[in-house]
Amino acid sequence: MTEQLLGRSARKRQTILSAGRALFLSNGYQGTSVDQIAATAEVSKQTVYKHFGDKHELLLAIVNNALESTVTVFLERITALGDTTDLEADLRALAGDYLRAVLQEPVVQLRRLVVAEANRVPALAQLYYEQAPARMLTAFAECFGRLHDRSLLYVPEPALAAEHFAFLIVGRCIDQALFYGGPQVLAGIDVDGYIRAGVRVFLAGYRPRADAGGR
Amino acid sequence: MTEQLLGRSARKRQTILSAGRALFLSNGYQGTSVDQIAATAEVSKQTVYKHFGDKHELLLAIVNNALESTVTVFLERITALGDTTDLEADLRALAGDYLRAVLQEPVVQLRRLVVAEANRVPALAQLYYEQAPARMLTAFAECFGRLHDRSLLYVPEPALAAEHFAFLIVGRCIDQALFYGGPQVLAGIDVDGYIRAGVRVFLAGYRPRADAGGR
Repeated sequence: MTEQLLGRSARKRQTILSAGRALFLSNGYQGTSVDQIAATAEVSKQTVYKHFGDKHELLLAIVNNALESTVTVFLERITALGDTTDLEADLRALAGDYLRAVLQEPVVQLRRLVVAEANRVPALAQLYYEQAPARMLTAFAECFGRLHDRSLLYVPEPALAAEHFAFLIVGRCIDQALFYGGPQVLAGIDVDGYIRAGVRVFLAGYRPRADAGGR
Repeated sequence: MTEQLLGRSARKRQTILSAGRALFLSNGYQGTSVDQIAATAEVSKQTVYKHFGDKHELLLAIVNNALESTVTVFLERITALGDTTDLEADLRALAGDYLRAVLQEPVVQLRRLVVAEANRVPALAQLYYEQAPARMLTAFAECFGRLHDRSLLYVPEPALAAEHFAFLIVGRCIDQALFYGGPQVLAGIDVDGYIRAGVRVFLAGYRPRADAGGR
C-alpha cells in the first residue's frame, strides 16, 4: 500500500515536471501560471504546491531534471575518452554528438528561458550554469589531464584546454542558436567538416611536440 | 528655423532612445511600457509614437543604435589588423579589448534582452545577430583572408578561422556572462594570460608551416 502510494506520488511528480517544462518552454516563466501547469498535468493546484513549494521552486526542479538526463550521458562519455586508443577519431565522434545535442531545440529553449530570467532569478542561472556548462567543462578538463599524463596531449592548463575545445566545437553554433534556434543553425553547417576543423585546431594547439621532447 | 526644429527633433529622438534603452535593460521588454519611456524622456506618448511607430519598432531602433556605436569601432580595428607588422602582439591587443568590450554589463544586458525576446520577436534577434556577431565574424574573416594573402597565416577557410578566433577569445566568457553577468566573469579571469592562451592556440592552428612550403 505504502509502495503503491509512493509510486503514484512519484508519477504525479514526473507528470507535473513534464507539464511545467512544456509550458515554460513555450510561454516563458512570466507567461506560465501554476493553474495552467496543474490543469495540463491533471492535478490540483494544491498537489503542485505540495510537491514543489512554489512556481520558482518548480522551475528549478524542471531545469535540474531536464539537465540531469542530457548532461549525465556526456559526462560518462567524456570520462571514457580519457582511455582512448584513437584520440582524433574519438574526439571527433564525441564532438559531433556534443554539437548535435546542444542544438536540439528543447536544449536551446531551456537556455533562452534561463537567460531570460537571469536578472529576476539569479539562483536559476547559477543552477543551470553549474549543472550544465560547468560540469561539462570540468569533465573535459579531467579527461585532458588524463590524456596529458598518457602523453597523448600536452595540456599544462586542463581547465583552459577544456574551454578551448568546447568553444572551438560548439561556440559559434550555441551562440547563434540563442538568436535563430537550434535546427536552423544545424541545417546551415556541414557537421563533419565543421567538427574536423575544430578538432584540427585543438590538436594543433595541444598535441605534444615530438621535436620538443615533451617541451 | 527649420534647422533648429530638426535639431530639436533629433535631440528628442536621442533622449527617447536613451530612456528606452535604460528601461528595457532594467525591466525587460514586457516589463516596460511606452508610458514609462515617455515619462522618463519627458516627452508625450504621442511624440514617442511619432518618432518610432510602436514599442516593437522602438526596441529595434534602440538595439540598432546601441550596436552601431560599439561594433563600428571594432570593425575598423579588425580591418587595420590586416596590415599588421607584428601579428601576435596586435592579435593579443585586439583580443583583449574585444573580450573586455563584450563583458561590459550593458552589452551583456542587451544580449539577455534580445535572447529573452527571441521567440516573441524573431526580427529583433535577427537584427541583433546580423548587426553584431555576424559583422564581427565577417570582418575577422576578411582580415584573416588578407593575412593569408600576405602569408602571415594559412587560412583556406577564412569564415571558419574567424569563428575559431572569436570563440577561443570570448566564447566561454560571453556564454558564462549570460548567466552571471559580465563584471563577475571579468573579475574571475587574468585577461592577459587568458588572451595569450587563446591566441597561442589560434596561431598553432593557422600559422603557415615553414617546413611545409606554405602547404
